[in-house]
Amino acid sequence: MKKVILTGDRPTGRLHVGHYVGSLSERVKLQNSGQYDEIYIMIADAQALTDNAEHPEKVRQNIIQVALDYLACGIDPDKSTIFIQSMVPELTELTFYYMNLVTVSRVQRNPTVKAEIVQRNFEASIPVGFFCYPISQAADITAFGATHVPVGEDQMPMLEQCKEIVHKFNTVYGETLTDPQIVLPSNKACLRLPGIDGKAKMSKSLGNCIYLSDEADVVKKKIMSMFTDPNHLRVEDPGKVDGNPVFIYLEAFSRPEHFEEFLPDYKNLEELEDHYRRGGLGDVKVKKFLNNVMQAELTPIRERRKEWEARIPDVYDILKAGSAVAEKRAAETMTAVKKAMQIDYFG
Amino acid sequence: MKKVILTGDRPTGRLHVGHYVGSLSERVKLQNSGQYDEIYIMIADAQALTDNAEHPEKVRQNIIQVALDYLACGIDPDKSTIFIQSMVPELTELTFYYMNLVTVSRVQRNPTVKAEIVQRNFEASIPVGFFCYPISQAADITAFGATHVPVGEDQMPMLEQCKEIVHKFNTVYGETLTDPQIVLPSNKACLRLPGIDGKAKMSKSLGNCIYLSDEADVVKKKIMSMFTDPNHLRVEDPGKVDGNPVFIYLEAFSRPEHFEEFLPDYKNLEELEDHYRRGGLGDVKVKKFLNNVMQAELTPIRERRKEWEARIPDVYDILKAGSAVAEKRAAETMTAVKKAMQIDYFG
Repeated sequence: MKKVILTGDRPTGRLHVGHYVGSLSERVKLQNSGQYDEIYIMIADAQALTDNAEHPEKVRQNIIQVALDYLACGIDPDKSTIFIQSMVPELTELTFYYMNLVTVSRVQRNPTVKAEIVQRNFEASIPVGFFCYPISQAADITAFGATHVPVGEDQMPMLEQCKEIVHKFNTVYGETLTDPQIVLPSNKACLRLPGIDGKAKMSKSLGNCIYLSDEADVVKKKIMSMFTDPNHLRVEDPGKVDGNPVFIYLEAFSRPEHFEEFLPDYKNLEELEDHYRRGGLGDVKVKKFLNNVMQAELTPIRERRKEWEARIPDVYDILKAGSAVAEKRAAETMTAVKKAMQIDYFG
Repeated sequence: MKKVILTGDRPTGRLHVGHYVGSLSERVKLQNSGQYDEIYIMIADAQALTDNAEHPEKVRQNIIQVALDYLACGIDPDKSTIFIQSMVPELTELTFYYMNLVTVSRVQRNPTVKAEIVQRNFEASIPVGFFCYPISQAADITAFGATHVPVGEDQMPMLEQCKEIVHKFNTVYGETLTDPQIVLPSNKACLRLPGIDGKAKMSKSLGNCIYLSDEADVVKKKIMSMFTDPNHLRVEDPGKVDGNPVFIYLEAFSRPEHFEEFLPDYKNLEELEDHYRRGGLGDVKVKKFLNNVMQAELTPIRERRKEWEARIPDVYDILKAGSAVAEKRAAETMTAVKKAMQIDYFG
């Protein structure tokens, strides 16, 4: 059986380093592993509209930003199909029919939906489209026959919902859809990067993100202002490493060669952490090191992004071509689905 | 502005005389009035699947039955576009985007949805697709720019939901969708015909319907067994006319010329009703008259149905051609909708 990846992002803002360590860098690795036959990367504008219905221009503008971030990170349109969700109408058609296979109470029990409703202060006024997005995601995954879905652990309930739909569909209408599996990030520390203010999640509205498109001086300023251990007041004080954003970032970004290059007094992160815990290591020194590490990672990304920014019409061509490829594949699934459901009357 | 009609039926069974007096005969009148520029009549298979997901073969088989009933009643494919809902994928796409403009609690408050949930014993296990069908109906109506929707009074909340979506869409994205109006049946008595057992609604599961495809002897048998006034035991007893199915049917079907032809002792229905109320008029006599009246109405329908039954491939051609016309029109709306929502990236 073919190995097929489906993944993507909602175009509601530029992508940040949390996206990078949590998923983008993983995708590039998977893409370049040569182990996958097809890779579909979706810019989920239709999903973004489920809770941004009144701000379509925000979604529209961010499509190109997300595409630039993808290309900057090393997503290669020759290896991965980058496409725009709304350009594949079959996804709405599949959603429509899958909606018959899921009960309202089942969606209400979905922990991710519950959490997102609280996070967005929706309560009684949840748009139906937002409420149904686990079903829409099942359409996205199955339309391309995805076998592998690389997402964060917090998306596990979404994948379970998708698997339930697959099993229900195949039971009722006969074996048609592919059962997908989750691919968790290889690096546990990367599952969720906190904001620079120490808050659990990077979010545009909190202003606590480092963006992939941030200039070098902006990145440095953000890192130097990062939240650390609030009880680590003097250099000689012992410091906490656990839950300290600077060390979480170092765990996600630093590699032994970074120590050799930028901080040769320490062999690796463990040694640095031990010193911080003992006391005698100042935040500024650690932050300067983190800045060097992150600049080393982000500079080539920023430079590639600038190259693509000068070629916007080419980026549109990539999205257009990718969307055509994606639509063709989704149409094949739709034909199979309609045949299985016996709603192919003139076939 | 063009005058456009959208109406239709769920293909879950053959159509009965309740459908005929409640909507089919009205549609034929509207069709032949020459007052409408476009008439779309939808066989709503996708909607039927929202609560028949596990019985697709039932829906599939009934598509041709409903089409035969349409043609038998005088729906003329040269004047009206008969099409199959699932053949117009734009309807699912519109539904998907309209779902963002309606809250879950708004759908929960819809009286028709509430009533149907009780009627189907769904309670906690309502399929999401069924829950969303008012939104799907709004897609059906607006896709064709319908100005007039001929439905029963009980469908008023559905049309209100549609009008809300139209207003919300036009407010958020700019004037795009057409605001429809309801067209109620001209004959009040025709709003809802009871079953032959006196139950409020004709329903296949209750076995209390007279079908348009029933043979003459079956119709007669059903009429002669009809529920009347249970206290009208002897001919000389006074009888109740209100709520008496035989008289409700007569109100819906009989015309003065029927009296002249079949029951010249009475000038019109009022005289017959007065006699029944006074006492001295037996049920059998009234039922025999009703049978004559209904045979006069149903015989030409039954004969036309038999003619079409011998031409099934032609019926399929009509549905195929109608679906192509409908899809073309819906695609125009979809283009306008995507432009208004700013999700027309390569236009």
